[in-house]
Amino acid sequence: VPTAPFAAVDDGASLLAGLERIGFPAILKTRRLGYDGKGQALVKDAAEAMTAVRELGGRDLILEGVVDFERELSILAVRSVSGEVRYYPLVENTHCGGILRRSVAPAPDSVLLQEQAEAIALKALNELEYVGVLAIELFQKGDELSVNEMAPRVHNSGHWTIEGAETSQFENHLRAILDLPLGSTSPIGYSVMLNLIGDLPDTQQVLRTEGAHLHLYGKHPRAGRKVGHITIRGGDPTRVMKTAEELRRDLPIVWE
Amino acid sequence: VPTAPFAAVDDGASLLAGLERIGFPAILKTRRLGYDGKGQALVKDAAEAMTAVRELGGRDLILEGVVDFERELSILAVRSVSGEVRYYPLVENTHCGGILRRSVAPAPDSVLLQEQAEAIALKALNELEYVGVLAIELFQKGDELSVNEMAPRVHNSGHWTIEGAETSQFENHLRAILDLPLGSTSPIGYSVMLNLIGDLPDTQQVLRTEGAHLHLYGKHPRAGRKVGHITIRGGDPTRVMKTAEELRRDLPIVWE
Repeated sequence: VPTAPFAAVDDGASLLAGLERIGFPAILKTRRLGYDGKGQALVKDAAEAMTAVRELGGRDLILEGVVDFERELSILAVRSVSGEVRYYPLVENTHCGGILRRSVAPAPDSVLLQEQAEAIALKALNELEYVGVLAIELFQKGDELSVNEMAPRVHNSGHWTIEGAETSQFENHLRAILDLPLGSTSPIGYSVMLNLIGDLPDTQQVLRTEGAHLHLYGKHPRAGRKVGHITIRGGDPTRVMKTAEELRRDLPIVWE
Repeated sequence: VPTAPFAAVDDGASLLAGLERIGFPAILKTRRLGYDGKGQALVKDAAEAMTAVRELGGRDLILEGVVDFERELSILAVRSVSGEVRYYPLVENTHCGGILRRSVAPAPDSVLLQEQAEAIALKALNELEYVGVLAIELFQKGDELSVNEMAPRVHNSGHWTIEGAETSQFENHLRAILDLPLGSTSPIGYSVMLNLIGDLPDTQQVLRTEGAHLHLYGKHPRAGRKVGHITIRGGDPTRVMKTAEELRRDLPIVWE
């Protein structure tokens, strides 16, 4: 599947070889367990790269070229023990400070990209003999998709499925690992999911908003921490987007 | 609000006075805590009435005339501590053996009855200074509604709201008693709820059915016991009804 140029980094020699091939700027990442921008560093020269390697633990790293892209999308796919596969529609994701802030589902103008995304997901599912929900983050440039990362689990960009799809990602994950028939992944209308990061919103205001569904995780708020999300769902995509933008402006967290 | 003719029954004298006014056949019911046809008896003469009074405990009974009706509907209303009120759309209910078997939501051909039902519900909510979800069961005859019973709680005929309404009856009950703004009661497409009574269905078959949502209550099956329900939801009412009828025919329980 198409990806950014990449090189494995396990020591100084592999780092230098990788930098020579990929050039600057580049991104150093831990290969596993990264999330919310944690476990990665943008490096602009060899000195920054050496420092980043040390700070990231020195091994099991990957060096990636920086990708020029227009927007970030993700596709959630689910595969059961028996091999039944379903795909949710592509989602458009907006990040800020390395953290997902908003998902729009289905992603606007994504119908012609869906088949390409499903083909990428199917390759990953089959190659890994994967069971459960798998999220694949994608970069779009023109009509082409390339893979950014994958999350082998239910995913923040799939939280909208609780209200916005016939079967939620959580129910389908359970159906998949229990080898039950998978449920429909059809969207029900249009959804926008807003993450609540670092602070809690005005509960009354959110609950008064038509079509808004508030999810609080019972976590103590602190800077950069996901403490909940809001999904706005409705039959009219323009109205859903407008409602989401109005709510977002009033949320306590500024998107830097 | 319009109801069947009724009389309070607390002893032999009030029973005889009630029977004289209401005539036969009539229905004797406990005034509180009846459900699924429990706590009631159809009586065709004075001897049957005397027996029924003894069997039902002798007091706090109500004697009702038998109502000629075309179909049974119900409306779920919700009122918060602050007095905010919302109504779900009318639901059409099919009973068998005194137990609810199927709810269709919104009830077909009920748009012109909705205002009448809401006015009845509002009277009850205000008179009782009610807080939470209230279900009112109604008889329809022509264009007229009369009240059968009310259930001061979330109700079996509202289970479809989990998938079929923007906010479920359970969430709105919690919002109401916590004095939070109430959520939208708008239906999302069309729903049919089928009760699972006395036995469990073929899980695989239900989960394979597009738009079907299976709810099992973890109760041990026995005759007449509600052990779960299935909600079939979709955007096309004809297809939803067809799917529900096909599923119903295959359920283990014959509707006597």
